[in-house]
Amino acid sequence: MRIAIDAMGGDLAPQAPVEGALAAAREWPDTQLLLVGKPEAIKSHLGTNPPSNISIVEAMDTIEADDEPVRAVRRKANSSMVVAGRMVKEGQADAMISAGNTGALMTVGLLVVGRMEGIERPGLTAILPTVDGVGVVALDLGANMDAKPEHLLQYALMGSRYREKVHGIARPRVGLLNVGTEAAKGNEQSKAAFELLSGAPINFIGNVEARDVLTRNCDVLVCDGFSGNILLKAIEGAAETVFGVLKTELTSSWKSKLAAAILRPNFGRVRKMMDYKRYNGAPLLGVSGLVVKGHGSSNAEATMHAIRQARTAVGNGLISALADDLGGK
Amino acid sequence: MRIAIDAMGGDLAPQAPVEGALAAAREWPDTQLLLVGKPEAIKSHLGTNPPSNISIVEAMDTIEADDEPVRAVRRKANSSMVVAGRMVKEGQADAMISAGNTGALMTVGLLVVGRMEGIERPGLTAILPTVDGVGVVALDLGANMDAKPEHLLQYALMGSRYREKVHGIARPRVGLLNVGTEAAKGNEQSKAAFELLSGAPINFIGNVEARDVLTRNCDVLVCDGFSGNILLKAIEGAAETVFGVLKTELTSSWKSKLAAAILRPNFGRVRKMMDYKRYNGAPLLGVSGLVVKGHGSSNAEATMHAIRQARTAVGNGLISALADDLGGK
Repeated sequence: MRIAIDAMGGDLAPQAPVEGALAAAREWPDTQLLLVGKPEAIKSHLGTNPPSNISIVEAMDTIEADDEPVRAVRRKANSSMVVAGRMVKEGQADAMISAGNTGALMTVGLLVVGRMEGIERPGLTAILPTVDGVGVVALDLGANMDAKPEHLLQYALMGSRYREKVHGIARPRVGLLNVGTEAAKGNEQSKAAFELLSGAPINFIGNVEARDVLTRNCDVLVCDGFSGNILLKAIEGAAETVFGVLKTELTSSWKSKLAAAILRPNFGRVRKMMDYKRYNGAPLLGVSGLVVKGHGSSNAEATMHAIRQARTAVGNGLISALADDLGGK
Repeated sequence: MRIAIDAMGGDLAPQAPVEGALAAAREWPDTQLLLVGKPEAIKSHLGTNPPSNISIVEAMDTIEADDEPVRAVRRKANSSMVVAGRMVKEGQADAMISAGNTGALMTVGLLVVGRMEGIERPGLTAILPTVDGVGVVALDLGANMDAKPEHLLQYALMGSRYREKVHGIARPRVGLLNVGTEAAKGNEQSKAAFELLSGAPINFIGNVEARDVLTRNCDVLVCDGFSGNILLKAIEGAAETVFGVLKTELTSSWKSKLAAAILRPNFGRVRKMMDYKRYNGAPLLGVSGLVVKGHGSSNAEATMHAIRQARTAVGNGLISALADDLGGK
């Protein structure tokens, strides 16, 4: 199995992707890790004796975080992200991972790798942390801002299959993000989607509320990119804010500092539960190859988690299963 | 000033609204508090010697939490909520407050009190808690699931005036809820709304992200009812979840229990910061009278906060200011 890694993408690149790939190469000797980017920059983090299943693919250009996506993908044909996408398209890699510019990566998925037949809109799939440590697969979280009910149906089918193939959950419970659990709730879009999902060959459990996502009210959460993105950022922001305020409060006196020191391992466990790194790796579902988005601030550990997800997806034949489901290649 | 209170609305009714009104009557002797509902039920919580500025208005029917809103308002003409609405309509009360069925209260606003001229869709306005304790006024949080950009403009105008009149903030910063801060971000609706807000006579600061609401990135947050409701519930859910997990973790051993006991006041302060009760009272803006929604689980303290907000709004002439702004009655 060969996985291409955009060594230049993400806030901590190239160090984080290179170190993550190194760790992954040691963990999984059967997997070829192809680091795509500027050879000199990559080499400086590879150490003197890298394992034999790691190699470098030259790409001298880089797509920056603030580049305009479509334009950057079109003009920077020799950028690490576009080269990695081309490797997937041409069968030189089974998957690609990038923590770079999200819009550009979606464009690479659409224009370089190409849409899967039968899919109108690919969806960006992320895992939201849950209290039980299992996580909820949610899509779309921002690939398409305006979604029709038919797109939500496709997200449901793809998310359901992903959950099964990559996380081994049989008959995953699919929920529709809404403002209440009753069938008649929501806007025109969600009402129409409810109808479509009710008739689909999935385990649809109905509408679910934003409030309950963290306690895993479903296994696959279906939403449009706009409200999904707001959900994701509201949860991240609220959790960060609570921790931030707690930190200020617990360092406000010597007494509270002492007590807080005793509780450090407890706080650590709670924080870890909400930590995106454990769940890193958001596949762009609906393109005809595996394209995985890493969190922009991915460190080496997060990169390794993304590689793990990509390995499992490739190993379990996710893309061909999706193509079968959706009746195309 | 006369404020009608639906004594039968809310999970803790009639006790919570009656006790809240009692406390308010003592605090503000210049305000008449009119408790609307079943006299016997109200009297059992009034005590033996209620202040003279508190009185009972008989309404023998009650709208329940699971009643279908429009139907309930049409059929239960003698329910406490409808009677309170009629009192506002007919000038027997300057404002009404209810913690009952949200949909029914919006229907009372539309059908009994009536829309303000020039307003297509009233918006439900709530205050989201912020770290600095000031709060963000957000609308619409669920009155209308499908909003046109023109409705978002009206929300912006009304929210801005509300912030000024009720909270005394001059030139409140108006932000548009979106998936990024750049002008070009978002769905078709938010892009069109951005244009409209940019030309409006308000202090529009552009797009704001869900992540930063709790650190008060604006004073008035404009959103459609669907994504606004998801934002609100995601924040509430995330905060509750973090506290819940912390509690489990901190009671997991005698050592952590001891340390947690020392920190109890600190935790209390953090929780209080995220507490909806301090911010209770969501006005339905855009109807030609002051209709205030209390949180369904309002206790006496929360009821009193809602009464305080209604008092300030009436005292500062909110409704006539809104009517002037919007060129109607």
